[in-house]
Amino acid sequence: MTVGFQGEAGAFSEAAALELFGAVGTRGFTTFDELVAAVDAGAVDAGLIPCENTIYGSIARTYDLLAEHRDVRIVGETTYAIVQALIGCPGADVDALESVASHPVALEQCRAFLAAHPGLRVRTVADTAGAVREMMEAGDPRAAAIGPAPAAARYGASVLIANVQDDVENVTRFFAIVGPSTTGLRPYARDDKEGARDDRACVVLDLAHEVGSLQAALGALAARGLNLRSLVARPARGRAFHYRFYVEFDGADRATLSALERHFGGRMQLLGRY
Amino acid sequence: MTVGFQGEAGAFSEAAALELFGAVGTRGFTTFDELVAAVDAGAVDAGLIPCENTIYGSIARTYDLLAEHRDVRIVGETTYAIVQALIGCPGADVDALESVASHPVALEQCRAFLAAHPGLRVRTVADTAGAVREMMEAGDPRAAAIGPAPAAARYGASVLIANVQDDVENVTRFFAIVGPSTTGLRPYARDDKEGARDDRACVVLDLAHEVGSLQAALGALAARGLNLRSLVARPARGRAFHYRFYVEFDGADRATLSALERHFGGRMQLLGRY
Repeated sequence: MTVGFQGEAGAFSEAAALELFGAVGTRGFTTFDELVAAVDAGAVDAGLIPCENTIYGSIARTYDLLAEHRDVRIVGETTYAIVQALIGCPGADVDALESVASHPVALEQCRAFLAAHPGLRVRTVADTAGAVREMMEAGDPRAAAIGPAPAAARYGASVLIANVQDDVENVTRFFAIVGPSTTGLRPYARDDKEGARDDRACVVLDLAHEVGSLQAALGALAARGLNLRSLVARPARGRAFHYRFYVEFDGADRATLSALERHFGGRMQLLGRY
Repeated sequence: MTVGFQGEAGAFSEAAALELFGAVGTRGFTTFDELVAAVDAGAVDAGLIPCENTIYGSIARTYDLLAEHRDVRIVGETTYAIVQALIGCPGADVDALESVASHPVALEQCRAFLAAHPGLRVRTVADTAGAVREMMEAGDPRAAAIGPAPAAARYGASVLIANVQDDVENVTRFFAIVGPSTTGLRPYARDDKEGARDDRACVVLDLAHEVGSLQAALGALAARGLNLRSLVARPARGRAFHYRFYVEFDGADRATLSALERHFGGRMQLLGRY
């Protein structure tokens, strides 16, 4: 079995995939678009795609892609704590470092560390795991990378400092997704233990652009005792004054979903139960 | 008058600020956090901060910062179409280029161009405008940058190809914000001409984690004839099962806002009218 993720080998997404799926093969894709297309086409058996981060909020592009690819379904979810590590070549000495490379977002998450080490020349690269790979290829013990500890293991590098990121909660939530050719896969790692498996659902609602229409739609959920988990609003492309709402809720048994499908008709699309 | 933005001189955000505010001084900040803190402290007279992009969705971090800085108010908004240009040193020849530098997100927006020019070595940097600045500092006509055309003007570089980004709508919406020491500033560039000035409002609602509570809140807006413009849901930090909703709506005259403040009490915070 092969699970796709976005990024290079050693990325946080790959580590999250291995934690959720166990010992499986993995395959990195450059973009979210390529990842979801590969899952849809069956080029990989499943994929793991981020949908929300505690600092940056919901990742609207992920929801848009899942709505576009109508045969791709969410079958599970997991969360992964992002911890940026300082990684060097084996034998490297923190005090002898001259430069550090990482993705701009990761560098921004390590501002206190970088401020405390003003002598380090900062270099930006396209991928945190790629920063570790490139560092090992160059083999210069004065050059370090900031990125995932699993990337150090992957490329034979050393974790010099386990956590160099600023003191903030940095947790990413991922959807496990499959295409039409994969059946029976139910990875499960919901972090709150209160809900039952397959109790959560994510749907797309295409609604007219009015407070009242969303209110009525949420009323249809509330009337069935469903609990809101997340809500992402997106202007519908090419349809002025229409909004697309991605709604996740708990309490979604099969009978309730059928009732919702009757209620919303063509305005609702189910993205998955998990 | 000085307007703050996030990024280096020549950034898309700076161009949007100059378009909205006219001939003003500008000052770039490294992060959104620093920008909002400077606006709050009166270090700049106003700021322009992105809140939404057509590809990436709402920028939750912006809303969180505006809620944290209770004295910072939204006083206007504008939209700016992001167009990535290929920029070179004066006299550079597209066919003689050997490398191109930009921010990873900008590079991802130009995948068709890069695929069509496989001979170009791609280098990532932390800022699109910074890519142009660094290119001019190095002065190598074989090295190009991808970034904002205004950055070419700013640094004396040449726009080699005006638009090298993939064919997608890439528009960013910005909030104009001021701190407590700035009064009377009402920049106005709403793109749809239907609404009246100061008719739009953005509020934070702190609600219990239930479909029903958001439904009831939206009902309070709908009952007053208010039209939803955007909705951003965020888990409330440190308060399990509470959500924070950022709601923008039209039709918000002063009397209606007072009525909403009576209705929601301490659960509502006004981020601005514009």
